[in-house]
Amino acid sequence: MKEFKVSVKISLKPELFDPEGKTVERAIKRLGFSVKNTRVSRIVEFTVEASTKEEAEGIAGKITNKILSNPVLHTYAIKVEEL
Amino acid sequence: MKEFKVSVKISLKPELFDPEGKTVERAIKRLGFSVKNTRVSRIVEFTVEASTKEEAEGIAGKITNKILSNPVLHTYAIKVEEL
Repeated sequence: MKEFKVSVKISLKPELFDPEGKTVERAIKRLGFSVKNTRVSRIVEFTVEASTKEEAEGIAGKITNKILSNPVLHTYAIKVEEL
Repeated sequence: MKEFKVSVKISLKPELFDPEGKTVERAIKRLGFSVKNTRVSRIVEFTVEASTKEEAEGIAGKITNKILSNPVLHTYAIKVEEL
């Protein structure tokens, strides 16, 4: 068995309002910087054992769909690299 | 002026306990998957105007240090790409 580092980025769908992003953007603007399109996402990282990278990607996909992301609200991107 | 997309990943320092990561890990294990070292980070993305990539990186660094991260708790990584 090998160990793989999994990194899952979970974002709100672009068409959905992101209140956390809006709050951060307001704080940045108050400092005097001009920014737009501010969005806040989460990254969940963990280590998993598997025989192959493909197997690790399969496990990561299942974990993401069952626990980390909600298909109504989120998009996600999964990266897997061998440790 | 050009537009740049800034992406700042803010993580708890590795030596600090991450309660959110621990909660996610417990949920994953309850599903029957064996994972470890689970950590949750945030990514803040925004668009900024600047004349050069270096200027955009400077703005991103100031915003990160003043608002997005706390040097006692966090490490961060900044990526800047031209749009």
